Amino acid sequence: MSQFENVSVSKTANVYFGGKCISHTVTLADGERKSVGVILPSSLTFNTGAPEIMELLQGRCRVRQAGSDEWTEYAGGQSFSVPGNASFDIETLEDLHYVCHFG
Amino acid sequence: MSQFENVSVSKTANVYFGGKCISHTVTLADGERKSVGVILPSSLTFNTGAPEIMELLQGRCRVRQAGSDEWTEYAGGQSFSVPGNASFDIETLEDLHYVCHFG
Repeated sequence: MSQFENVSVSKTANVYFGGKCISHTVTLADGERKSVGVILPSSLTFNTGAPEIMELLQGRCRVRQAGSDEWTEYAGGQSFSVPGNASFDIETLEDLHYVCHFG
Repeated sequence: MSQFENVSVSKTANVYFGGKCISHTVTLADGERKSVGVILPSSLTFNTGAPEIMELLQGRCRVRQAGSDEWTEYAGGQSFSVPGNASFDIETLEDLHYVCHFG
């Protein structure tokens, strides 16, 4: 599905890293919270609170999990998971559209 | 209200001007379409198809309508209208969060 149906969406955006990552918060009918966003070409380090699943819709990136030396490439149609209270490095060379699932 | 309730929202973002303006498309229960987005600090020229009302949520800008020499300042809590098939110049010095209403 290309859109979330029957949800609430925040009117103001979440702006991270000076605008290199921008998302809007979506709340499903059952109260589950997600975010829909885009990462512009950049090299960033994200910190997690809750565990996250990053579902990639479009674009390409490479990701290095905290404590790992290894970079893994991902593209639209793929997902990767990040533990809670952790971090990951991400490099994007093109706009990366994603849905972030929490918890 | 800080969010739209009972709507559909596109999972992929609309990325304009190399990421200086990013929005997501929202469709209300009655089929009306809006967008929620943010303009990062920049000087941009937007072209309209349908008439637009730009409802500013947060931030500041100045706007010059096509055919005018006059710049008008707007801030969060204010709105401005743009005719269809027209254009406007907008300068932002801080992140400008908005809802765009069409038609």
